[in-house]
Amino acid sequence: MLEKYINAATRRVKSDLVLKNATFVDVFSGCLKKGDIAVVGDRIVGTGEYEGEKEIDCKNLTVVPGYIDGHVHIESSQLSPEEFASLIVPRGTTAIIADPHEITNVCGMAGCEYIANASKNVPLDVLIQLPSCVPATPFETSGAVLAGKDIEENITNEYIFGLGEFMNYPGIIYCDPDTLKKVEAAHAAGKIIDGHAPAVYGYELNGYLSAGISTDHECVTKEEIEEKISKGVYVHIRHGSSTQNLGNAKYITDANMRRFLLCTDDRHAADLKEKGHLDDALRKLVAEGLDPVRAVICATLNAAECYNLHFRGAIAPHYLADLVVVDNLKNFNAKYVIKSGKLVAENGKPLFDTSKRYLPGNVLNTVYLKHMKAEDFILTLKGKRARAITIEPGGVVTGCETVEVESKNGDVVLKGTDILKLAVVERHKMTGNIGKGLFKGYGFKGGALGITIAHDSHNIILMGDDNASMAKAANRLKEIGGGMVIVDSASGEVHSLTLDIGGLMSSRDAESLQSDSRALIERAHSMGVKREYEAFMSLAFLSLAVIPKLKLTDAGLFDVEKFAFTDINA
Amino acid sequence: MLEKYINAATRRVKSDLVLKNATFVDVFSGCLKKGDIAVVGDRIVGTGEYEGEKEIDCKNLTVVPGYIDGHVHIESSQLSPEEFASLIVPRGTTAIIADPHEITNVCGMAGCEYIANASKNVPLDVLIQLPSCVPATPFETSGAVLAGKDIEENITNEYIFGLGEFMNYPGIIYCDPDTLKKVEAAHAAGKIIDGHAPAVYGYELNGYLSAGISTDHECVTKEEIEEKISKGVYVHIRHGSSTQNLGNAKYITDANMRRFLLCTDDRHAADLKEKGHLDDALRKLVAEGLDPVRAVICATLNAAECYNLHFRGAIAPHYLADLVVVDNLKNFNAKYVIKSGKLVAENGKPLFDTSKRYLPGNVLNTVYLKHMKAEDFILTLKGKRARAITIEPGGVVTGCETVEVESKNGDVVLKGTDILKLAVVERHKMTGNIGKGLFKGYGFKGGALGITIAHDSHNIILMGDDNASMAKAANRLKEIGGGMVIVDSASGEVHSLTLDIGGLMSSRDAESLQSDSRALIERAHSMGVKREYEAFMSLAFLSLAVIPKLKLTDAGLFDVEKFAFTDINA
Repeated sequence: MLEKYINAATRRVKSDLVLKNATFVDVFSGCLKKGDIAVVGDRIVGTGEYEGEKEIDCKNLTVVPGYIDGHVHIESSQLSPEEFASLIVPRGTTAIIADPHEITNVCGMAGCEYIANASKNVPLDVLIQLPSCVPATPFETSGAVLAGKDIEENITNEYIFGLGEFMNYPGIIYCDPDTLKKVEAAHAAGKIIDGHAPAVYGYELNGYLSAGISTDHECVTKEEIEEKISKGVYVHIRHGSSTQNLGNAKYITDANMRRFLLCTDDRHAADLKEKGHLDDALRKLVAEGLDPVRAVICATLNAAECYNLHFRGAIAPHYLADLVVVDNLKNFNAKYVIKSGKLVAENGKPLFDTSKRYLPGNVLNTVYLKHMKAEDFILTLKGKRARAITIEPGGVVTGCETVEVESKNGDVVLKGTDILKLAVVERHKMTGNIGKGLFKGYGFKGGALGITIAHDSHNIILMGDDNASMAKAANRLKEIGGGMVIVDSASGEVHSLTLDIGGLMSSRDAESLQSDSRALIERAHSMGVKREYEAFMSLAFLSLAVIPKLKLTDAGLFDVEKFAFTDINA
Repeated sequence: MLEKYINAATRRVKSDLVLKNATFVDVFSGCLKKGDIAVVGDRIVGTGEYEGEKEIDCKNLTVVPGYIDGHVHIESSQLSPEEFASLIVPRGTTAIIADPHEITNVCGMAGCEYIANASKNVPLDVLIQLPSCVPATPFETSGAVLAGKDIEENITNEYIFGLGEFMNYPGIIYCDPDTLKKVEAAHAAGKIIDGHAPAVYGYELNGYLSAGISTDHECVTKEEIEEKISKGVYVHIRHGSSTQNLGNAKYITDANMRRFLLCTDDRHAADLKEKGHLDDALRKLVAEGLDPVRAVICATLNAAECYNLHFRGAIAPHYLADLVVVDNLKNFNAKYVIKSGKLVAENGKPLFDTSKRYLPGNVLNTVYLKHMKAEDFILTLKGKRARAITIEPGGVVTGCETVEVESKNGDVVLKGTDILKLAVVERHKMTGNIGKGLFKGYGFKGGALGITIAHDSHNIILMGDDNASMAKAANRLKEIGGGMVIVDSASGEVHSLTLDIGGLMSSRDAESLQSDSRALIERAHSMGVKREYEAFMSLAFLSLAVIPKLKLTDAGLFDVEKFAFTDINA
């Protein structure tokens, strides 16, 4: 192949593909250049004047290297990797550092393998980070546990690129032996370790970084960014659906420029479809005043350097021919996307087969549950005063409110209040665990809502004002193998949406899934869920026992500030 | 160890070593910071306020990361790796990318292994590049040939870091199969390939770089630097003894800053001892106007990035504790040097044992030669007109001059002319090859001079006006196992200096070697060698058949411009 590259580079033979008359970003010199870009096989062989077997005229268009998403959980799109690719590749993303933390919490290593194998069907490089913190906390029952020895065993797998975001920063800082075993295993395998250390500063940060952590996507303040950059951390500029820190770009200077990269972390299908992926981040960054060439460098060369992706992220000889032809560096509308030398998307549409699905049995039917009965949801209080969870719109932070509740026949009476029952039903190991709580202010009435996405262990979260409806909702989720459900106690009707892959993602296409999903969400709002909430997805964080204040897991009510289980009786 | 790092980083225990009250360069933010630098084992664990088992007060001093020489031939110092380290480590260099091209031309892979093993004795990381072009040209007889299959076989050796400067750029550009085999082997092994492509531009450069070449240390012009940077090449700023391009720093911009690094390539012991190593480059770069923090970044982080030396080249947690404490960023006088957490030099003096020498038999006694006789040096011309080599002072470029010479008894008569005989005697394989030529304008009279350093195959170069003296010189070089020799035909005296390691380097200490070397050079001048020449070392390039114009190898007179052997008869 080398001979073919060189013969084409020196113009002794035609190149396979030439982008003619292009303006392109020279990420090394930080400027725009003009010329043809010649491609042979999966490589760029040169810039200048070239002839190609195939030629694409790029007059009045600008060519940039393919974007690299430095940190993403595909699962947050609720789409299969294939369908996810069909949305982001036409936007210009050609490589992602994917941390299959969610599916691995449900399916263990089978989840990682699934993401890796499914990604082989599509023209997107999916570099798999082995999830480092499964489960995320010891306060709930997950589908899998990756202990130190499991990380040791799996980090050397060929399909594993590195070690995923190390959320358990206290485990590192306080030298938990099993935690350190994971870090040591990654170093021994020569693999990069992604970080996650929100608001960790000073000596604690020194401790965390002394473990050899390379990145952080949780920075938001000037102080935090500057300290982390100074201590060798690559800082992600995040453009997720809920969590965004595009403002980080304000802290880019001439001197620290190379240490910033882009990521999306968690981005919903609707945003991917309607707004875009990293192209949308670039658009917004430039609109907010970041130099467009710099923005491109963050999305390409910087990410390649951070993740040791040699000969990627630039338009130069021997570099991987991942190229995006955009209208301009303001709108970043991708007209053509070339992945490894092949034209794979045009005018926002994928040119690759998006219908193939890799669907192994071990990520399907993941809801293990005994048949639930109304009685399972009886909530007996000692008195009238109880701790209820409240939720802030738009975020994942919850509050704790002491409420007065009546009881009858050993069960709370919710009628006439704005309080609902909340239940987290273990669904992985048939432990029969049910965590029960109260939930105030969501607005829903007349039945139950349920979902098998419940961060990070993904048990079933149910909410409702009727025990029988809650049981029915759980049983339907079991029946469909995971997803979302609404039970209307008045009509007895059950409406659901299947998320067949681990109860987290659908094997369907994005369009039909979203259409059904919107209908279900609308139904939830019609049953009273306030518009400021995301109906189902706002529930999904009620079990995340690392974010304040009061959370509910299958093991019970958890006070995050005290970092301990707490009693519902106030 | 991780636990110890973290416990010290978080100040639960004392660090092993703390540099107190330091001002230090933050290479990530491009500025100076203040604080203590804490070290545990071979790692930096944090900056801030720390206590150490050992503390070094750095008040009024500045701490920078250890310097990394991006490309160097240790052999050019004529010193063993141990002695070389004793000169450069106290100057602040803690890692070098070493290409043992010279010794490998003499000894083959045994030369590479020797450099690798000898370097284990000293606190300097010597990363060995497998020489890619042995011999450098097919026009002479070298001690070894590393063909494609040899590179394939050896590139995967654990002690081999990458593939050395690919001087044979025509071989790549014109797709010589065995040349490409070498490149492919390096890529298959995932190893970096250093470049060497002086004045290669445009499509030829695209061809060369399409092979996946990462660096170039031969750039000198603005155009060349800008084009190479733009095409993804890391550009070295070279501070050798003869070849220097510190001026390259003028082309550093905010945008391309990360793509420049420092190297010395070829630097003599006297310069190392008297002027310094990369510290001298830094001093000069800053004197010439380069921002001192930028200069440090080129010498540290940039080199680490170029060569994928993770967690090196910065003062940050988990980074290798290679640190230089200098007086200031103007003079760069190293007060303390810390290598992998250990204090290894103080006030310019090594604190490590410099007397150990690894000296395997296979790099000693490398002069293989039948006993030479005066008749061997008879030079018979067809007529009176002959092509003679002339030499420009200070450089390695030679000229070609047609001279008139008398002959008598089938041998040229040199008496009364400023012409000398030149001979290149094959010394590796006892082929009996002798290339003969004429050499004009050097000034020497009354005997012969000889040396076993003759780029790049390192045969014996002899020069003189007396056949018997030339034979005597060759025989002495054989007897001492290589080095330099002067024969005085009047007195019959023979003076020599032994370079026992491959006939290129001495196992002695730098000081005594230099003293003897100076005496021998002085003797050469006293016998007429003009002061503008380097007496012996100027001879060493007369066989380098890639640099214009007329050269002499053991296979005959070579016209570099025609790239073919030529006849001495004009």
